[in-house]
Amino acid sequence: MTGAASVQVRRATREDVPAIVALLADDPLGAAREDLDDRTAYLEAFDVIDADPAQHLVVLEDGGVVVGTLQLTLIAGLSRRGATRAQVESVRVASTHRGQRLGERLVEWAIDESRRRGAVLVQLTTDASRADAHRFYERLGFVASHVGMKLPLS
Amino acid sequence: MTGAASVQVRRATREDVPAIVALLADDPLGAAREDLDDRTAYLEAFDVIDADPAQHLVVLEDGGVVVGTLQLTLIAGLSRRGATRAQVESVRVASTHRGQRLGERLVEWAIDESRRRGAVLVQLTTDASRADAHRFYERLGFVASHVGMKLPLS
Repeated sequence: MTGAASVQVRRATREDVPAIVALLADDPLGAAREDLDDRTAYLEAFDVIDADPAQHLVVLEDGGVVVGTLQLTLIAGLSRRGATRAQVESVRVASTHRGQRLGERLVEWAIDESRRRGAVLVQLTTDASRADAHRFYERLGFVASHVGMKLPLS
Repeated sequence: MTGAASVQVRRATREDVPAIVALLADDPLGAAREDLDDRTAYLEAFDVIDADPAQHLVVLEDGGVVVGTLQLTLIAGLSRRGATRAQVESVRVASTHRGQRLGERLVEWAIDESRRRGAVLVQLTTDASRADAHRFYERLGFVASHVGMKLPLS
């Protein structure tokens, strides 16, 4: 069996939370932001996401092991004739599994799911320092048409 | 009475929808995207937004007239120790009312509301062509740290 055949994207469960957090921390920017020991905070956040029908947190499994994650949020709006937009956040693939087009599988899942749910647009922001990520999304058809601005509150 | 004293930000109602859509269309980029005659689409979208506890669509009134709008979405996530982020979309001030710092009032409302609801970050994207908007948000403390990428699905 090839690796690709054993790969699937599925809805995340509470049991996946430690694996997802490990993926978020397995990243140059994420390492400083996450605290793997603070399980309560992550589980509480999972419960909020899981109860929200506009939120879709998924994992990518390869042979039963979680090696990727992505969060999709559907945002209804009045702009563009009452269009729903879909927003992608927190895309990660395990550093041990890069170069296998697993990120592509995840983002293609998000694009398909967004279309299926009637969104007219998929949007995301990537840190300006992630040049590889920009090229990755451009290959998938995304256009770097906007400036992403952030204001930390803490 | 000064203009500022009669200005308030309040939750949008169904009756505000035509005024909000007129504001969305009153913009170089928005004009081509909106269709003021398609009331059903906008009202249906309003009902979805209004029923979603994570969404906050507001109008800015000046002397009882709607002259601005903004949409705030709270997005729970696992990243950053289970942090909630707040996203700002569809900020508009009537072209007849520019230069009165009403946009500032709207965005400051969004920042305060995001903090009150426990968000650690406020984020937004602006079209790369809106140089004035970038300066406006930078004055309010936003940092242009990200690239905003969009994929149209239609």
